Amino acid sequence: MSRGSTAGEPAPANRNVTLRDVARFAGVSVATASKALNGQPQVRAETRARVIQAAEQLSFSPNTIAQSLITQRTGTVGLLTSDLEGRFSIPILMGAEDAFGSDQTSVFLCDARDDAIREKHHLRALLSRRVDGLIVVGARPDTRTSLGRELPVPVVYAYAPSDDPRDLSLVTDNVGGGRMAVDHLLRCGRRRIAHITGDPDYGAAQDRARGALERLAEEGLEPAGGEVWFGMWSEAWGRGATRMLLERCTDVDAIFAGSDEIARGVLDVLHEERIDVPSRVAVIGFDNWKVLAANARPPLTTIDLNLEQLGRIAAQRLSAAMEGNPGSGVETVPGRLVTRESTAPLR
Amino acid sequence: MSRGSTAGEPAPANRNVTLRDVARFAGVSVATASKALNGQPQVRAETRARVIQAAEQLSFSPNTIAQSLITQRTGTVGLLTSDLEGRFSIPILMGAEDAFGSDQTSVFLCDARDDAIREKHHLRALLSRRVDGLIVVGARPDTRTSLGRELPVPVVYAYAPSDDPRDLSLVTDNVGGGRMAVDHLLRCGRRRIAHITGDPDYGAAQDRARGALERLAEEGLEPAGGEVWFGMWSEAWGRGATRMLLERCTDVDAIFAGSDEIARGVLDVLHEERIDVPSRVAVIGFDNWKVLAANARPPLTTIDLNLEQLGRIAAQRLSAAMEGNPGSGVETVPGRLVTRESTAPLR
Repeated sequence: MSRGSTAGEPAPANRNVTLRDVARFAGVSVATASKALNGQPQVRAETRARVIQAAEQLSFSPNTIAQSLITQRTGTVGLLTSDLEGRFSIPILMGAEDAFGSDQTSVFLCDARDDAIREKHHLRALLSRRVDGLIVVGARPDTRTSLGRELPVPVVYAYAPSDDPRDLSLVTDNVGGGRMAVDHLLRCGRRRIAHITGDPDYGAAQDRARGALERLAEEGLEPAGGEVWFGMWSEAWGRGATRMLLERCTDVDAIFAGSDEIARGVLDVLHEERIDVPSRVAVIGFDNWKVLAANARPPLTTIDLNLEQLGRIAAQRLSAAMEGNPGSGVETVPGRLVTRESTAPLR
Repeated sequence: MSRGSTAGEPAPANRNVTLRDVARFAGVSVATASKALNGQPQVRAETRARVIQAAEQLSFSPNTIAQSLITQRTGTVGLLTSDLEGRFSIPILMGAEDAFGSDQTSVFLCDARDDAIREKHHLRALLSRRVDGLIVVGARPDTRTSLGRELPVPVVYAYAPSDDPRDLSLVTDNVGGGRMAVDHLLRCGRRRIAHITGDPDYGAAQDRARGALERLAEEGLEPAGGEVWFGMWSEAWGRGATRMLLERCTDVDAIFAGSDEIARGVLDVLHEERIDVPSRVAVIGFDNWKVLAANARPPLTTIDLNLEQLGRIAAQRLSAAMEGNPGSGVETVPGRLVTRESTAPLR
């Protein structure tokens, strides 16, 4: 290999420009040109600048991987999810894509299935494909193990927060959502408010109940029936709990269901018992799972956790981290009330 | 750059082996070593073999991208989906992952949202990340435009078939599913079978109805109510159509609903009218959308389109294509009957 023998001579126009042409034009060896374009440290800054300039002048079109090594960006982000059913991941994915700009960045979703080995494998695959950053989505809003501080790209945790406070996590606001649901029922003039919810082992169930009880306590109220009805995340539990509730507490005027599935069961029993919704009992759900909420009779007022918004913010925070401004700690994204026909003011 | 000056001399053990070490060991220039490992055509076969052998002997660990250039495989596959709600994509993704082996291949899902520009962008991103192959999932089971024959990796179309018969497409069996639903009702001794289904603009609605009518005709039967009840993919339509059906046709003994959403509406009206399911009217849905089917009262018998199986077969066909054995044409994956409590033999 001759070194710099024809420095400054442009490559013929009738063939593809190669790394060799760039090296010759810059007056360096092919190996040095390669190192310079690959961002390796053994090259002096002036040399690297000369090589990059030569590459630009010659319109050197290496493959995209080589190009990405120059810019240090690939325009791809990994979304590593453990949310099996895709109910949380898809809106988060969409929000992130919107925030990145769908013509700027591609988000690659990988399904880790709450399995540590699978997660590690996908993590390796995404990193080896040189994604610029990672969004890690949990299956539940409970704390998860950090991927560690040694990763070569920034990470933002979404839905399930990292257990390392140096990481940045974005979480939904289940406590605030519980408050919001009860607050809406109070504004509708309801005072005998019951709360039927899911599995008490889930942080989401506990947090929603806590918010609801706090808001009730501020008005000097207790939940109708005297306690929170924990059970399962199912329509069947919504039906069973409502039957028990109606036996124990005949003057209930509102039910806050901890999920839209539970709310569907609540509505079915009220319908069977010819108890009008919303005039006699108002019902509010949680999740805004459209297939359940919009199709309910009457269509269900519910709390939306704003997962798309969470995805958008995750993308913004990840972009900031990629620019060298990483965040840390846990950031809470507020939910919002979606009113349909199952709640209304008492006349 | 000296050429081959210290050929055969192993690199020192106390530092990382570099491309330069490999070149020296193989007795070639760095540029030639690079070309050989990058699979570029200007290198003679013996030279390439010597360089690869040298790299192996020195346990040369280039980055994974370089490694993938040697093996020509990256262990990643792209899944380009236009299925907004993720209802079809996620099971197909899971099936594909299972078939590839989750420790062998990572499947990257990209969301194209039925938007040609977005699809093109994601396609470019996936190809530039050097995926080994692509699975393209449509939003509806209707024919879609081929991505063309010029792509550098094999493609398998899933759910929505390609309009180019030279492509390989895997589709669900909506006609067969319709037959299967009616066949099950016939085996339950039902003869007055109605079919309430969704939007007639969807191929899925037409195909399911066609299968149902064919199977009825084989028994010399017409659908109860005289025609197929096309409408919308919603619970509300299921309710409305059932009310009309019961007015027109008092002796109906089975209803085949074109989706589980519609079936939920059907069940609600039968429940209200105190018509027992399944003893008086058997009900079968379509989709096996668990949140709707398993939670129904009674739990809903339905047709499952076997999307995970479709994903597994897509992965197998893609693997075969990557091995140099591409298929073509449209391959139909049969569905299966999932029996729950909403159907039973007449006593």
